[in-house]
Amino acid sequence: MTNAGPFIAFEGGDGAGKSTQVRLLAAAFEEVGREVVVTRQPGGTALGTQIRGLVLHGDHMSPRAEALLFAADKAQHVDEVIRPALARGAVVITDRYTDSSIAYQGAGRDLGADEVAQIQHWSVGGLFPDLTVLIDIDAAEGRRRREGTHDRLEAEADDYHEAVRSHFLALAGADPSRYLVIDGTLAPGDIHLRVHQACTVAGWLPL
Amino acid sequence: MTNAGPFIAFEGGDGAGKSTQVRLLAAAFEEVGREVVVTRQPGGTALGTQIRGLVLHGDHMSPRAEALLFAADKAQHVDEVIRPALARGAVVITDRYTDSSIAYQGAGRDLGADEVAQIQHWSVGGLFPDLTVLIDIDAAEGRRRREGTHDRLEAEADDYHEAVRSHFLALAGADPSRYLVIDGTLAPGDIHLRVHQACTVAGWLPL
Repeated sequence: MTNAGPFIAFEGGDGAGKSTQVRLLAAAFEEVGREVVVTRQPGGTALGTQIRGLVLHGDHMSPRAEALLFAADKAQHVDEVIRPALARGAVVITDRYTDSSIAYQGAGRDLGADEVAQIQHWSVGGLFPDLTVLIDIDAAEGRRRREGTHDRLEAEADDYHEAVRSHFLALAGADPSRYLVIDGTLAPGDIHLRVHQACTVAGWLPL
Repeated sequence: MTNAGPFIAFEGGDGAGKSTQVRLLAAAFEEVGREVVVTRQPGGTALGTQIRGLVLHGDHMSPRAEALLFAADKAQHVDEVIRPALARGAVVITDRYTDSSIAYQGAGRDLGADEVAQIQHWSVGGLFPDLTVLIDIDAAEGRRRREGTHDRLEAEADDYHEAVRSHFLALAGADPSRYLVIDGTLAPGDIHLRVHQACTVAGWLPL
């Protein structure tokens, strides 16, 4: 298929500041007259919202079942939202994509990251972002920012979040041309400037 | 793990008469004092029931999402129901297992059966039935028996059911030692006799 996009994913731990960056980047593309589709995973479709409810609030879930539910959400999201948007020429910006599933499920849930990656890659039918922005924060900083939230994934301990972080960094390290890794302790405006610059260099935004 | 079972699966098209055979076989094992756990897919767990609702009554579902939802149900079912039952020495009889997913999703939904099989096999973590009974009926017979039912999977046309049937037969043909294929137009009592005989030969039921 024609990847008209660009298709850009933001990844990183809970509390990294992804949603702020998604909004800022969407505004930058809209300012130059582009249609922008902002979405997120899990939960970017009606089916995904139902799946998100099952995953975040389910008890006693098998690690494999959880990984497969995330993959099902991804498959629906790609077919229902992302591919049609790219096909009509829109910019697509997603808050989390395959890497989050690989990092969270592979690192934290006793499954092999390679196995989870294989299933994730199958679920998206080979559609990968043109750019993945990894906003990197350590577990302690993430916890400070998350205070007051209570869903199941966010209630895990620091060592889990540190394992997730290591997986994100390993994914970025394995494919540096597709990743932009940014220190999440920078001010939101500074993070946005770096993302904007990368989009300019790629020719997606004017200077 | 110790596969104390036996673990027996019934497969076949809608209307083949699987649920009758599951009941008859369960009664045979109970008669000789065995604990029997009867289950079914999709839907053998609380999570599975929710997934079943999404799959059977969902609209515009991506074929990959559907295949992954079935796999998620399978993973939960194996971890929550089947493995614990086998571990404590029970007989487990399931109405559908991996083969139904492979046949329905792989044959009918524009996905490669090999790809779906790979995901199904991952979902069950290598746990396969000691015996799979395939009750074989052709599409026209299945349709006659199904009259009056209306869920989405059952509303598909005969050629779809015929493709499913071909996949079931191919799976059985590829692993004859694990499969018992029975003509579904036989009387229920005759079908049960053949299943019972296979269980006797295997040493699971007394003569």
